[in-house]
Amino acid sequence: MTDFDYDFVIIGGGPAGRRAAIQASKLGKSVAIVDDQKKIGGVSVHTGTLPSKTIRESVLSVTGWRDQHFKSGRQRHGANVTQNSIASRLSTTLGDEVEVIDSQLCRNNIATLKGRAKFSASNKLAVSQTVQGKKTSYSVTAEKFLIAVGTKPYRPSHIPFNGTSVVDSDCIAANMPMPKSIIVVGGGVIGLEYATIFSTLEIPVTVVEARENILEFIDRDIVSNFTHQLSERGINLRLGRTIKNIELDKNNSPHVVLDDGRELRSQMLLFTAGRVGAVGKLGLEKVGIEADSRGRLSVNAETLQTTQPHIYAAGDIIGFPALASTSMEQGRLAACHAFNHPIHTSEHNFPLGIYSIPEIASIGMSEEEARANDLQVEIGIARFQETSRGHILGNCKGMLKCIFDLHDRKLLGVHIVGEGATELIHIGQAVLNLNGGIDYLSDTVFNFPTLAEAYKVAALDAYNRMPQPRMRA
Amino acid sequence: MTDFDYDFVIIGGGPAGRRAAIQASKLGKSVAIVDDQKKIGGVSVHTGTLPSKTIRESVLSVTGWRDQHFKSGRQRHGANVTQNSIASRLSTTLGDEVEVIDSQLCRNNIATLKGRAKFSASNKLAVSQTVQGKKTSYSVTAEKFLIAVGTKPYRPSHIPFNGTSVVDSDCIAANMPMPKSIIVVGGGVIGLEYATIFSTLEIPVTVVEARENILEFIDRDIVSNFTHQLSERGINLRLGRTIKNIELDKNNSPHVVLDDGRELRSQMLLFTAGRVGAVGKLGLEKVGIEADSRGRLSVNAETLQTTQPHIYAAGDIIGFPALASTSMEQGRLAACHAFNHPIHTSEHNFPLGIYSIPEIASIGMSEEEARANDLQVEIGIARFQETSRGHILGNCKGMLKCIFDLHDRKLLGVHIVGEGATELIHIGQAVLNLNGGIDYLSDTVFNFPTLAEAYKVAALDAYNRMPQPRMRA
Repeated sequence: MTDFDYDFVIIGGGPAGRRAAIQASKLGKSVAIVDDQKKIGGVSVHTGTLPSKTIRESVLSVTGWRDQHFKSGRQRHGANVTQNSIASRLSTTLGDEVEVIDSQLCRNNIATLKGRAKFSASNKLAVSQTVQGKKTSYSVTAEKFLIAVGTKPYRPSHIPFNGTSVVDSDCIAANMPMPKSIIVVGGGVIGLEYATIFSTLEIPVTVVEARENILEFIDRDIVSNFTHQLSERGINLRLGRTIKNIELDKNNSPHVVLDDGRELRSQMLLFTAGRVGAVGKLGLEKVGIEADSRGRLSVNAETLQTTQPHIYAAGDIIGFPALASTSMEQGRLAACHAFNHPIHTSEHNFPLGIYSIPEIASIGMSEEEARANDLQVEIGIARFQETSRGHILGNCKGMLKCIFDLHDRKLLGVHIVGEGATELIHIGQAVLNLNGGIDYLSDTVFNFPTLAEAYKVAALDAYNRMPQPRMRA
Repeated sequence: MTDFDYDFVIIGGGPAGRRAAIQASKLGKSVAIVDDQKKIGGVSVHTGTLPSKTIRESVLSVTGWRDQHFKSGRQRHGANVTQNSIASRLSTTLGDEVEVIDSQLCRNNIATLKGRAKFSASNKLAVSQTVQGKKTSYSVTAEKFLIAVGTKPYRPSHIPFNGTSVVDSDCIAANMPMPKSIIVVGGGVIGLEYATIFSTLEIPVTVVEARENILEFIDRDIVSNFTHQLSERGINLRLGRTIKNIELDKNNSPHVVLDDGRELRSQMLLFTAGRVGAVGKLGLEKVGIEADSRGRLSVNAETLQTTQPHIYAAGDIIGFPALASTSMEQGRLAACHAFNHPIHTSEHNFPLGIYSIPEIASIGMSEEEARANDLQVEIGIARFQETSRGHILGNCKGMLKCIFDLHDRKLLGVHIVGEGATELIHIGQAVLNLNGGIDYLSDTVFNFPTLAEAYKVAALDAYNRMPQPRMRA
């Protein structure tokens, strides 16, 4: 057997990479993570998941948004107060997170190599870093590799990015701006998260999205409720529209012309239409792996192997759903497969969580999917305003939708829009994955007052329209 | 068959009464609720559950408690701002609630009779009310009855209640005071909820409790974490102590002497040691039902019948756990039994929720119960500070404890202290009641970042110490 430096070298210290590292280490393997960021964590910690969620939480707190129902006027702070408050919260939160990650890697005896990795041979990486202006490079060999380098914002050449008035999401996360108005190009998850954050700050927002529908992977009733809430708050949604031209006026403000000739002006433009795999300088040609046009790698869906069996890929770099939660699971599976550990692939559905304001979360089939599969279903709907907890929180605009199979009474899907959705979905997830259904949800005693009671309300709503083995109130 | 005015008359419009009414109505029965409050809802809406939870939510909002981790100093408002804010929120919230209840009763064709009910014969009530100073009374007959009159604060004669400086919990709910300091007598659920609310307002609090331990029905690790948090915030807990004497000084401030001779002074005293059934004027002697010394009625635990088979009782009036959630379930069961509808008694555990600051919630067995039952268990613990969501919320003091059966790997109990506990517990409840266990929780993909991830952290914590069918990271 060849003598490698490590059993497993992982490129990228985000959720997929860290989870893979810990799994391999528990299997007794020697593991290193190569990461070129100053601090470990990947996009998830430094420019993506955590910063956007932390900014979101700061904005909810600064604006008093959660208590809006009880206030005649909205709380208003100067832009400086808001910016300082966000910056200080970001620094505390990300600091806490990096500390936890460092300690976790240390506890599991995982080496972290700072620098940029590039394949130089089939089992060898060149790791280069610049220390005090001097570029140094060294080699690291391993039996197996995992590429978990994530993605970065797509920056097409026709968009005049300037880092101040035309920006990508990395810029926002680094330094939350407070423009007088903003155009968000791209109505995907990232675009909608930031669009709703800006709108909560009472900054006028226009969203331009090329597709006719947003969030096509989410149940239509939920999207329609969400879209309605956005419109009510004055967010301008331009769906099915593309950008014909963007120019900067003499104040550096973007002036956008859409394909239908309509002109939009604002102080800032955030471009979120797409992300690309960060594979550019990985030297993939040396190992015979090819990325697609968006820099994504294709893998065997079960084993997470690339076309080179000893090189795995996981996380955002392999595409949808590109969530921290699913990336971690992929990392774990890749490490198990790499070191011949029986893979216990969970058959279970994973949840989707979108941290817009309000949140959206989903598990299992949408109504459209159920019908496309010729399943006969009954639908139960609960509005948070029907629960006492909804009244107390004053945040009455949420909605929970359950989809039940008419034949076996099992739960097929749950879809939620409203504050707390990303947490609440896990109740439905447990019921769905453990084969519970309408009888469990309608019989269960929930704490009062909680938003979780919406599950019971939704179940009883469906119950009353279903063939009844027994009658229920 | 005798011709009665109604099939079912329910005394009390709280959670038990309303749920029973709706169930009976769905079974095609004619139903009336007799309630002597100006507005329907019972203690739950007007002086108990909802007001205390609404006050709690106002206080969390006014003090910025949820964001405390990110603030160098606590937000401070004048007592007036706080009081007005609470009063206005209470009025909005309870108004919304009463509206929903009224519409629900109306939709279900349930009559509401305003007035005080008193049995005059086996199937007859006298309902009396005072309209414009004139007392009127009329009779109502029914085939079956449900007593769901709830409880009221116990006011022993040696406590010099005066409605201003020595009060019960009803007074607090009616008009939230802002004393300079407060002694809370009684370390039960109500006492602890208010003690922690006052403490969050930075009012010095002393709790006097006769038992050596608080919350004896909750897992000891959780109580110990909770007690520690209370002490850290400066709440003074005097356990195993009773009151020897209370006098009012010349400023009307209570001066308390404990059984150990220690003297306590404060501006206000809240007495929460016990509640008594509100059966005083029900004319129970006319129907041969006897209440116990605390005004509680005993019932057949399965059917909810009193000693008179056609008279049922449900809710706080029958004792522990005296929660809105369980009272509703009792009301439903009583109505089903009364009208010969097959009772589908859920075998399922019901959750306990305590809305102190922080919250406590529990489902299934505590570690102590499991060990007392000679079960071999493994314990998994997660601290919220180990989750990214905990960092974002800045509220890092929560803890989640899972108890697993070593033999079949099933979940036996979950116990949580920390914000969101009352909602989060329902995930564990679903897993427990649907026979899931450690493998479900450790394999499940949770949304990131959520507090729900604490379940996975706790499961992996236990996993690593259990005999392993397969190894896990």
